[in-house]
Amino acid sequence: MGLDPRFDQLPPEFRELSPPEALLSFNKSVIDQVAGVCIAAKPQAAFYELYGAEGFHALAETVRYAKNAGLLVIVDAKRNDIGSTAEAYAHAFLHPDGPFDADALTVNAYLGSDGIKPFMDVAAQHGKGVFVLVKTSNPSSGELQDLEVEGEPIFERMARLVDGWDCEAVVGGTYPAQAAKTRALMPRATILVPGYGAQGATAADVASSFRHDGSGAVVNNARGIIFAPEGPRAAALAMRDALEAIVPSPAAAGEGEGEGAPRSHV
Amino acid sequence: MGLDPRFDQLPPEFRELSPPEALLSFNKSVIDQVAGVCIAAKPQAAFYELYGAEGFHALAETVRYAKNAGLLVIVDAKRNDIGSTAEAYAHAFLHPDGPFDADALTVNAYLGSDGIKPFMDVAAQHGKGVFVLVKTSNPSSGELQDLEVEGEPIFERMARLVDGWDCEAVVGGTYPAQAAKTRALMPRATILVPGYGAQGATAADVASSFRHDGSGAVVNNARGIIFAPEGPRAAALAMRDALEAIVPSPAAAGEGEGEGAPRSHV
Repeated sequence: MGLDPRFDQLPPEFRELSPPEALLSFNKSVIDQVAGVCIAAKPQAAFYELYGAEGFHALAETVRYAKNAGLLVIVDAKRNDIGSTAEAYAHAFLHPDGPFDADALTVNAYLGSDGIKPFMDVAAQHGKGVFVLVKTSNPSSGELQDLEVEGEPIFERMARLVDGWDCEAVVGGTYPAQAAKTRALMPRATILVPGYGAQGATAADVASSFRHDGSGAVVNNARGIIFAPEGPRAAALAMRDALEAIVPSPAAAGEGEGEGAPRSHV
Repeated sequence: MGLDPRFDQLPPEFRELSPPEALLSFNKSVIDQVAGVCIAAKPQAAFYELYGAEGFHALAETVRYAKNAGLLVIVDAKRNDIGSTAEAYAHAFLHPDGPFDADALTVNAYLGSDGIKPFMDVAAQHGKGVFVLVKTSNPSSGELQDLEVEGEPIFERMARLVDGWDCEAVVGGTYPAQAAKTRALMPRATILVPGYGAQGATAADVASSFRHDGSGAVVNNARGIIFAPEGPRAAALAMRDALEAIVPSPAAAGEGEGEGAPRSHV
């Protein structure tokens, strides 16, 4: 579940609060509703930074609340830098003593290994995850990512780098053929798949980001869950059903856990 | 002047404060010392995010203080995303009604036009600047940026994209030959040049990022100024002297303004 709340789109009862308070209160409400259905929450840092220090407080409290509700938390911040600066970002978002202490962070690897290793070091020490942008879901992603280098597009080269770094990856659900290629190039990676729902990707589109046994991907849906007319829980259940109709259940998923148990492939 | 303060490296009198208070107090001190010598301050967002909401408050107050001291402020946050998310980042850092209201922001263009246009729109409306990473100063920058696409390295392709977007650029001072090439490919861009000082770039190295008339570049030095044993002002003056010995004074720089006037090429 993508936690990308926009103040103007919140139900009226939340808009009586200040924007950062409204975001946090709304997030708590949708987290309560999807607990046991969604496996992870992905707050988008930009919507909190918009409100400065108070927004960052709302983000930190959102991370804490979601973790307490049993969700994994992937902060989508696409951070990138080198050396001690990258260490500072990694500490901020992934270190247990940092202000956010999320389970995972999205990062951008345009700077090469120097920009990834500091994140990986902190993640490895504390059992956290680092998701590197490989092929993004937006229409113009190909302007750079699809250019050919030595006979392959840049996003495939990035996939090879990600495999070497042994980190996780972001591959948009809106490009199924490219997703299948990157899945093969990064057999160890868990792939975060944005683009489901509002951006147009269907369950069939995202299926190629899973391994054949149904493991290895986490599919994000933001507006389609948090602002769903039928409510977040009904929307999350419908999304789970749509995925389960196409993606095999991983062997690791316990049988008979019932509707309330998170599934490792959603 | 790069404002990349690390709490552990601050003079003892600042370390009696809480870390975010110490960062802000230290920043005010060095801003006071370099006012009239440096033309811009470049706070590195990571060192503030490290302290969560209180750190973001320190960053916002640093931006305000530096602007009041007559400095341009470039927030080095390397943000990147698409659509309404990119708009939220742009609003946060560049909009006059946002919490930071800086003069410029660094961004990462791995996502293509969709990831740049929202920043450019806000910048254009409010007379702000957007600096896109073209060739970064770190040792591993070539892993991706130097790969050849259609007969030219990726960073040159990025320079062509930047020229098309009509935004500004970041080109590391540690790669003078590549900097000369990108200068030619982006005749309109102002180039932010990191890498001076601690990372090894000299005045001679960064000279190729200026236009022949001495305009078009802003050179960053962080540790070499803020932690200089001889003090920030002496270090900033020495850096200015070193640059003036190699780079011609732009015609636009007023004559006879004296030591206290910022120079448009520093």
